[in-house]
Amino acid sequence: MIHGTHNAIEDSRNNDILISINDQLFPRNDAKISVFDSGYLVGDGIWEALRLHHGVLVFLDDHFNRLWTSAASVGMHLPFSKEELTAKVMQTLKANKMTDGVHVRIMVTRGIKKTPSQDPRLTISGPNVVIIPEYKTASKDSKEKGITLFTSTIRRGSPDYLDPRLNCHSKLHEVQALIQAIQAGADEALMLDIHGFVSTCNATNFFIVNKGEVWTSTSKYCMNGITRAKVIEVCNTSNKN
Amino acid sequence: MIHGTHNAIEDSRNNDILISINDQLFPRNDAKISVFDSGYLVGDGIWEALRLHHGVLVFLDDHFNRLWTSAASVGMHLPFSKEELTAKVMQTLKANKMTDGVHVRIMVTRGIKKTPSQDPRLTISGPNVVIIPEYKTASKDSKEKGITLFTSTIRRGSPDYLDPRLNCHSKLHEVQALIQAIQAGADEALMLDIHGFVSTCNATNFFIVNKGEVWTSTSKYCMNGITRAKVIEVCNTSNKN
Amino acid sequence: MIHGTHNAIEDSRNNDILISINDQLFPRNDAKISVFDSGYLVGDGIWEALRLHHGVLVFLDDHFNRLWTSAASVGMHLPFSKEELTAKVMQTLKANKMTDGVHVRIMVTRGIKKTPSQDPRLTISGPNVVIIPEYKTASKDSKEKGITLFTSTIRRGSPDYLDPRLNCHSKLHEVQALIQAIQAGADEALMLDIHGFVSTCNATNFFIVNKGEVWTSTSKYCMNGITRAKVIEVCNTSNKN
Amino acid sequence: MIHGTHNAIEDSRNNDILISINDQLFPRNDAKISVFDSGYLVGDGIWEALRLHHGVLVFLDDHFNRLWTSAASVGMHLPFSKEELTAKVMQTLKANKMTDGVHVRIMVTRGIKKTPSQDPRLTISGPNVVIIPEYKTASKDSKEKGITLFTSTIRRGSPDYLDPRLNCHSKLHEVQALIQAIQAGADEALMLDIHGFVSTCNATNFFIVNKGEVWTSTSKYCMNGITRAKVIEVCNTSNKN
Amino acid sequence: MIHGTHNAIEDSRNNDILISINDQLFPRNDAKISVFDSGYLVGDGIWEALRLHHGVLVFLDDHFNRLWTSAASVGMHLPFSKEELTAKVMQTLKANKMTDGVHVRIMVTRGIKKTPSQDPRLTISGPNVVIIPEYKTASKDSKEKGITLFTSTIRRGSPDYLDPRLNCHSKLHEVQALIQAIQAGADEALMLDIHGFVSTCNATNFFIVNKGEVWTSTSKYCMNGITRAKVIEVCNTSNKN
Amino acid sequence: MIHGTHNAIEDSRNNDILISINDQLFPRNDAKISVFDSGYLVGDGIWEALRLHHGVLVFLDDHFNRLWTSAASVGMHLPFSKEELTAKVMQTLKANKMTDGVHVRIMVTRGIKKTPSQDPRLTISGPNVVIIPEYKTASKDSKEKGITLFTSTIRRGSPDYLDPRLNCHSKLHEVQALIQAIQAGADEALMLDIHGFVSTCNATNFFIVNKGEVWTSTSKYCMNGITRAKVIEVCNTSNKN
Repeated sequence: MIHGTHNAIEDSRNNDILISINDQLFPRNDAKISVFDSGYLVGDGIWEALRLHHGVLVFLDDHFNRLWTSAASVGMHLPFSKEELTAKVMQTLKANKMTDGVHVRIMVTRGIKKTPSQDPRLTISGPNVVIIPEYKTASKDSKEKGITLFTSTIRRGSPDYLDPRLNCHSKLHEVQALIQAIQAGADEALMLDIHGFVSTCNATNFFIVNKGEVWTSTSKYCMNGITRAKVIEVCNTSNKN
Repeated sequence: MIHGTHNAIEDSRNNDILISINDQLFPRNDAKISVFDSGYLVGDGIWEALRLHHGVLVFLDDHFNRLWTSAASVGMHLPFSKEELTAKVMQTLKANKMTDGVHVRIMVTRGIKKTPSQDPRLTISGPNVVIIPEYKTASKDSKEKGITLFTSTIRRGSPDYLDPRLNCHSKLHEVQALIQAIQAGADEALMLDIHGFVSTCNATNFFIVNKGEVWTSTSKYCMNGITRAKVIEVCNTSNKN
Repeated sequence: MIHGTHNAIEDSRNNDILISINDQLFPRNDAKISVFDSGYLVGDGIWEALRLHHGVLVFLDDHFNRLWTSAASVGMHLPFSKEELTAKVMQTLKANKMTDGVHVRIMVTRGIKKTPSQDPRLTISGPNVVIIPEYKTASKDSKEKGITLFTSTIRRGSPDYLDPRLNCHSKLHEVQALIQAIQAGADEALMLDIHGFVSTCNATNFFIVNKGEVWTSTSKYCMNGITRAKVIEVCNTSNKN
Repeated sequence: MIHGTHNAIEDSRNNDILISINDQLFPRNDAKISVFDSGYLVGDGIWEALRLHHGVLVFLDDHFNRLWTSAASVGMHLPFSKEELTAKVMQTLKANKMTDGVHVRIMVTRGIKKTPSQDPRLTISGPNVVIIPEYKTASKDSKEKGITLFTSTIRRGSPDYLDPRLNCHSKLHEVQALIQAIQAGADEALMLDIHGFVSTCNATNFFIVNKGEVWTSTSKYCMNGITRAKVIEVCNTSNKN
Repeated sequence: MIHGTHNAIEDSRNNDILISINDQLFPRNDAKISVFDSGYLVGDGIWEALRLHHGVLVFLDDHFNRLWTSAASVGMHLPFSKEELTAKVMQTLKANKMTDGVHVRIMVTRGIKKTPSQDPRLTISGPNVVIIPEYKTASKDSKEKGITLFTSTIRRGSPDYLDPRLNCHSKLHEVQALIQAIQAGADEALMLDIHGFVSTCNATNFFIVNKGEVWTSTSKYCMNGITRAKVIEVCNTSNKN
Repeated sequence: MIHGTHNAIEDSRNNDILISINDQLFPRNDAKISVFDSGYLVGDGIWEALRLHHGVLVFLDDHFNRLWTSAASVGMHLPFSKEELTAKVMQTLKANKMTDGVHVRIMVTRGIKKTPSQDPRLTISGPNVVIIPEYKTASKDSKEKGITLFTSTIRRGSPDYLDPRLNCHSKLHEVQALIQAIQAGADEALMLDIHGFVSTCNATNFFIVNKGEVWTSTSKYCMNGITRAKVIEVCNTSNKN
């Protein structure tokens, strides 16, 4: 079993989940998308991942604000409101009879292309919306045993390239960073920013607790994390008291 | 109709093509891939595009050498030989009765993931191979009318980030560059390297002919183009004579 | 009429203003400087722009402190005191009978050169001081209609080149940035810093109000603006209360 | 007397030269330009300097090609042909009865501004053309005694800022580099590129002769010098023989 | 006599000090280390300098924490505890009968190499510990006369090269910066960071007092100074009151 | 036994070598240098390593030219001629009765410091010259088994920091790169330049032979290697024939 910050306990219920693709529900093995989808062809899509906890979609507003900001920054018009997207998610959860301990991945790609191409003008459908809900309970392993990190030679880039703060479908460089870590025998990759300062792990933001202080990197080169923002908020509040 | 370097004449035969997905053939509208495919989820895949000209797959060796190099650089093991991949392509072309004027896109993604994640350890299948062959005859428009370029603020990054020389499924930043160009009324984007020097167009390498000299950028920040290499080779040979 | 942050209402009184050149007053059309002036030849000069409001030169101390700092950073000795320069300005305003709604541009160049050259050793006069006072009332257009910005590919440089914080006569790159914006149909240019982060507009500092928060860039790559400093001061004060 | 690469022998004939400003001739002391000229206000202009040698304007085509390229890169339309500009220069030389040993500086600024501003839309005249011809015979001092160089902390920037290859009126940073050199007791400044490699002197391109080899910097961060190109051409030719 | 921030009054007692090398005491002239020592061969060692004031080793904990952090960052295992190292220092001071006004330099190199090489695997001893205690009373000169600084072209690098925050035996570039300053007639070098912002002096951190405010650089490119941290702490405390 | 490009066969004769320190000869264990030596204290020294092959010091001129260039670039005056230094080396070899298969390390540090300091003004002796001759026959292992490389996160810096082309005593960052490689289970470190391109191994220049072509990095960020230059010369010559 892999070992990392995203460790989850094996849960056989996930074999039978229903996945929503443009509002239609499919069993896991039938959940497919056109090979002309822009996300598949050129990583042209954005996504959010959030948790369902005791019936509540945690920090839903923050996630949807970020999704709409991401859409703006990649020039994608979302042809539905936040309420409508919430309804899609709720409908998917309902169909799966899920109420707790669920991780929901919402993916929005630009749509079906006429031919394999980067060109957004060749998109012949509206955005494709895929919602994958899965039962995920964090394994205690990561907390108990800790994880090992390997500093990758793959860096977090500047925002004038592929903005490293963007939650998108183009993440091959992060996969490469993780592969370096795995090949070196570590669990996850620690990534440096363009100047060589520590920025983030490949798939999780990075914090150090040093003598009672919580340290993290500047936000300039890491994922614009919602949990990250909450941690910082809690630390600041706690610091003042 | 869009106007750019990849302009192709509309060809109705493309409506009826068969697409190969892991050696099975599907009509265009049924050609689908799992939403757990690594290419769809995180742009984790590599591809080549080549032409069938009078029955010959042009520069096939160069394309396959580059594909195998790409696979190595993203840590993907290809469980087939170059001969076997050639056979897959030929079989697809044969099924489509195609012999000339065809553009073949070969896409190899890491495979099906157990759950949406960057983590290559969570891949539960071998690589997925998709082959899309389409009739494409270059429109004369681009040559006759020329195209307009817009210099994008999106840059070509360093190789220590997402290597800009890599032919892969993570190309959202190139889409962003092109969107800037389109919004500014141009046909394609001209992209600068990290130092602000001209590097390449978003989807085509860039050459200038200036008073009988052919100029192009350094190869450090642009696609490692096969046509590009051939043009340079021709220019060098011609220069010596 | 152009549309931008510096929009001013047309004011016919400006046709008849007197301009001070080294303490002599000239009508607008006769206000001329030697073609051997260092400012004209190589942009070798510094300037300030301030407002006369109800008889008061607003933030005069801040402007003069900045002017003297600018002079030091370009190695120019100012052969007059702040009081003497104030007297020059007051004398110019008095000659123009101006008491309110006036924008005063004070320009100090290194002086007359013996021959066209960068070389400060070839300066054969003391600094040339030009004072242009004009009636300027901000047009309501900018506020009411807003302005459109275009992100330029021209960047704010590092302080080890031409320091982007310096209020000087060498601003061709900012003109270039604005020209890009105009050609793209926008009103002004938004400029990025060397790392691709938003820094400033070409001729005005940049602020965003986002959900009640005022955001601006780091001060490292933008004009060392006096209004900017006042805005930040007001925001900080307001934040604490 | 200053000592540097541009050393010229004192020549009293220069006291009586006629300078051309928009085709009108003025004695040196009366040669003046509006304080609303874009070159004076914001360094918004371009120039060339060439020599009259035995009645010939040396490398005239190269200089004018560069001037027109500079104009294009700063978005300035030149409302005259190369032939017309040649005529202006010849007329000026004729009025001065100059036939040999003359250095001609041709300066073209965007024009008169309505008010002090960067904004090209506020230009209310066509370009201003100033031609200054002076007798200049290189002093033998530089060759005989050599000159001393000081490495400045002011760098040559990237082309995405103020392009260091551009022959323009915004050169304050080069003045600053030279001032550092002078203050340190040297004759001229040696300037490094953005990576710290030697690029050029502040006002002259830089060559080293080392054991019979001629070395110079990459052309990326130094003035796009015509003499430089000729030197390189000569070296290449000589190398092949 | 040299003049700089480290000026000390000549003290003849220093002629007779005893120096500790791996717990053995040697007179100054006999204090020698193998030419196979890693510090001598390739600057492979770390050090601390602290003061003995009225019998107290000032900020000892801070210095030793930093030493252990330095050791970790260069992959050196220290085979003694902080208490044991304190004992070594105290023993040295005792042997010298020193109780006040003493500057103690503690140097720990990786050890003796089998042959001249960078390779830590060729180290055939444990770390070498050298302790040099000297009487040093700051000369009043620096405070009274001030010192002159020269801005060096040698920069503070990124932490992905030789980390400029590290207190180590590889300091040749800082020597080079100082040599530039001395050659230019100054007392010490002011060094810029990779972006051209002021960072630090070559051997002392840099502070400016400007109108009652204390300014210093970001900590990213300067020595991780203990005195620096104390000054900032005092300023922050004082600011709040 | 360590395994790397510098592998040498164990040779017991090296136990009894005589080492020259400022022209005096010492057995290996008595070969010591003052702890006030600038090389030991702050890595302030330069060195060369060359081979004695059949009585000839191979490429001696190249090595000494480089040594004198290094001395100039660190502001060190060498108080002896190349002939005198050759004599010192020959005398050392003679004393050791060495005639073949010898690796000679010549180290020149700035000299003895009055007190531990970077300051060259505190040097109270001339340069210290240490010559270590050792029998070294390359182990066949490296050639037969190859070595494994690990790409380090420690980069080759720009020449405006500690020039990576300099053969000097400050090499801690290269030690750090190698330690990363060792910890990851590799033999040596591959180091990238500031832009993320492959530059060099930590202690050996890097070449790839790819389909009959020899590839190496630009010379900008790697050791200015004499063997490297010879390899390139041989390749160029061979290419023309």
